[in-house]
Amino acid sequence: MAEPVVKQKLLAGLQQILPREFILNSEEQLRPFECDGLPVYRQTPLLAVLPGNADEVKAIIKLCYELRVPIVTRGAGTGLSAGALPHTEGLLLVMTRLNRILAIDPDNRTATVQAGVRNLAISEAVAPFGLFYAPDPSSQIACSIGGNIAENAGGVHCLKYGLTVHNVLQLKVISVNGAELLLGGSGLDSAGFNLQALLIGSEGMLGVVTEVTVRLLPRPQTVRAVLAAFTSIDQAGQAVSNIIAAGIIPAGLELMDTLAICAAEDYAGAGYPRDAAAILLLELDGGEATVTEQMDLVRAILNSSGASSLRIARDETERLRFWHGRKNAFPAVGRLAPDYYCMDGTIPRGALAEVLSYISQLSREYGLRVANVFHAGDGNLHPLILFDANIPGQLQLVEEMGGRILAKCIAVGGTITGEHGVGLEKIRQMPLQFSDAEISQFHAVKQALDPVDLLNPGKNIPLLKHCQEYRALATTVASNRPLPHD
Amino acid sequence: MAEPVVKQKLLAGLQQILPREFILNSEEQLRPFECDGLPVYRQTPLLAVLPGNADEVKAIIKLCYELRVPIVTRGAGTGLSAGALPHTEGLLLVMTRLNRILAIDPDNRTATVQAGVRNLAISEAVAPFGLFYAPDPSSQIACSIGGNIAENAGGVHCLKYGLTVHNVLQLKVISVNGAELLLGGSGLDSAGFNLQALLIGSEGMLGVVTEVTVRLLPRPQTVRAVLAAFTSIDQAGQAVSNIIAAGIIPAGLELMDTLAICAAEDYAGAGYPRDAAAILLLELDGGEATVTEQMDLVRAILNSSGASSLRIARDETERLRFWHGRKNAFPAVGRLAPDYYCMDGTIPRGALAEVLSYISQLSREYGLRVANVFHAGDGNLHPLILFDANIPGQLQLVEEMGGRILAKCIAVGGTITGEHGVGLEKIRQMPLQFSDAEISQFHAVKQALDPVDLLNPGKNIPLLKHCQEYRALATTVASNRPLPHD
Repeated sequence: MAEPVVKQKLLAGLQQILPREFILNSEEQLRPFECDGLPVYRQTPLLAVLPGNADEVKAIIKLCYELRVPIVTRGAGTGLSAGALPHTEGLLLVMTRLNRILAIDPDNRTATVQAGVRNLAISEAVAPFGLFYAPDPSSQIACSIGGNIAENAGGVHCLKYGLTVHNVLQLKVISVNGAELLLGGSGLDSAGFNLQALLIGSEGMLGVVTEVTVRLLPRPQTVRAVLAAFTSIDQAGQAVSNIIAAGIIPAGLELMDTLAICAAEDYAGAGYPRDAAAILLLELDGGEATVTEQMDLVRAILNSSGASSLRIARDETERLRFWHGRKNAFPAVGRLAPDYYCMDGTIPRGALAEVLSYISQLSREYGLRVANVFHAGDGNLHPLILFDANIPGQLQLVEEMGGRILAKCIAVGGTITGEHGVGLEKIRQMPLQFSDAEISQFHAVKQALDPVDLLNPGKNIPLLKHCQEYRALATTVASNRPLPHD
Repeated sequence: MAEPVVKQKLLAGLQQILPREFILNSEEQLRPFECDGLPVYRQTPLLAVLPGNADEVKAIIKLCYELRVPIVTRGAGTGLSAGALPHTEGLLLVMTRLNRILAIDPDNRTATVQAGVRNLAISEAVAPFGLFYAPDPSSQIACSIGGNIAENAGGVHCLKYGLTVHNVLQLKVISVNGAELLLGGSGLDSAGFNLQALLIGSEGMLGVVTEVTVRLLPRPQTVRAVLAAFTSIDQAGQAVSNIIAAGIIPAGLELMDTLAICAAEDYAGAGYPRDAAAILLLELDGGEATVTEQMDLVRAILNSSGASSLRIARDETERLRFWHGRKNAFPAVGRLAPDYYCMDGTIPRGALAEVLSYISQLSREYGLRVANVFHAGDGNLHPLILFDANIPGQLQLVEEMGGRILAKCIAVGGTITGEHGVGLEKIRQMPLQFSDAEISQFHAVKQALDPVDLLNPGKNIPLLKHCQEYRALATTVASNRPLPHD
């Protein structure tokens, strides 16, 4: 426990900085903040604050630095790896009130916004200029750009347009000791070390972002989507490879399996074929001629790859309906069981069939149903494991199974995260992905930018002394539960 | 001077690692390595070595670490900011013999190559698969991918395809103490801190890259170029803004002024109109229908922006001829005077006219001719200042004038580098771009990954104690030489 005197000093200091209504102290005020989008982890912070501007953020950080109080920064709390899980002896710094669009520069195609601005609010604000902000996580209506930066968020369009790191030009950051840093620049390159890219995906451990300049893109003239059904997942996976090999880079390319299809159909009535083993939802965007030309090619490839049916959205209404199913796949699957666990890993496209078959094996072995929803184009898997947290021991089984899926991702040359980050959720898999030498370098960088270890301590990078233990654990789990063909 | 005993120990150790022919010791052996592509800086290294594989690189680094000998890593030596200037008491680590293409994976569109592989050799090796590596610096026939990483190299196509940092997936790196690190991954995202992006552009100061996995792109079906002439540079600049505003992202968009046009024409006979105040060279690539559609739009915009003439390359021969002029602009301008100094800065597109007019003023004031060659689409300027190094004091004048151009880039919201890096050349401008707090963070990161300061010491990041002095100097220069409208 933090000494009561520290909490008193912190509270007194905060009251000098913020109106009392923005300092949360009581049990009931703090409860809504005890978890992020991964509610299997819960913790109550010492205190929570909702600053209204960057100066307040800076003053709060300076105060915490003086008192050596840990800080967990939180955006909208939609993260899926417990990256924003509060620290019991720390302050929860909630950024949602920093929600102003500061500048839009259509000539240079940039927008500068405060860190708490919602992802979708950026695209809405720049729409009158014919522009949009490309990364579009499923939570885009709610999630904040600051949280997107913390986790290097992606979305269904990142195959073509990249992740957050590819779409942010400049960051205003407060360092742990309260210094203000301007990182990156208006151009593609900037001088000095690329600390801006280093900050993106660093889960609030290297600094607190207050302001962001993002790159905007012109809204494509034409957008067209096609829905293809397959009688086997392997065929659908092969179709993805064939499309990519043909030199097409779709704006989005999603794969869903039967369980996900039926759940989405029940929930959203998207017009998906319930009898398919897999569907691909592919979107093209660009000029009218471009899209028409590419859609002809895509159609030919889907047919020659064995698609059992193929439907091009007749109009914008049908296109949005196709996406409505995909975008609601998670809550739709959520209705199939009391709880679900959304995994996130990336594999080389060529390994799709192998990894899917492994997941099926695990599903049978553990007796847990899995729905698969993938960003297929960039090899980003999202297996959703269905379970019931009220059955004792079941959550542990799910975590064990999830760990084995991630280990498989590493084994085929992939990574343990595609866009959700490591947070607390995948910290045990980090030593499977990285050597002690690599983990040591991560710690060195953390030590360089946060020497007192106050910014989101304990997330993302495991302590070196635990790495050997986590590796041994993964080996034990795998050998205790041998699979038929493992 | 390094104590002779250190040199003797180093030499003895190197002879255990490498065949003698790959250890360069004599004055005449070392002379070719005394500078990189910015020959106004010259220095002889203590010794130079040409290792043949990653194990030798690792052993050499370990040896230097034990003996505390500085290491400057050098690729092909084509860098333009003296980033590979040798250290008089250090080892020059020349990577050109690590020139093997290790793997090509057409399914996942990646190639893995050793760090000394030439940029163009990658595209040549993957051409049979219909793929290419996008970043294409002017020196691409000679420069190495390792050097590209050190400087985060760009090229004429980076407006559409990005810089090196946007096209590299994974790095194998030897840290200063000889540990091997694998950074990044096969997917877009990877877990932990983004050290891979941090290493790119870090000028060999944070580790030595031995192996690189790059992202490949499908060769576009159609490539078409148009050459537009303008009677004023302002009009040409406005045309660039109009094209970008229309939502077109050309594969390349270059601007040259009269002096550069005439020099290129004399040298390469590219068919450029000698009477133009500026030309734009614009290239579109993609599917046939796409390119045709976009070219119609580009043509209309160029005309409405006041182009005095407009020529679309009839065939591949003429297209390559257009580019031949641009790609040889530097050597062509080089014939106009005994020496030239190539600047590199980036500005917001909207500031083009203002900065160009400032450069003209400086040109008159200093009595030095300037040829302008720009990556106009991304605001990356390359003013070439003509001079004669044999005239005492003229190099100092050029450096002063160059410094003022860079200061102007910062003043309009740009940066002091577009793609050439800081090296030694622009170290005095760093404190104009960055605050002490930011420079301190750079040093903290350097200290974290190279605690003994052996990797390319003295480049890129100025010592804090010099920052105030450099800032004062810039102010003095500017106030001692007031411009008419400055």
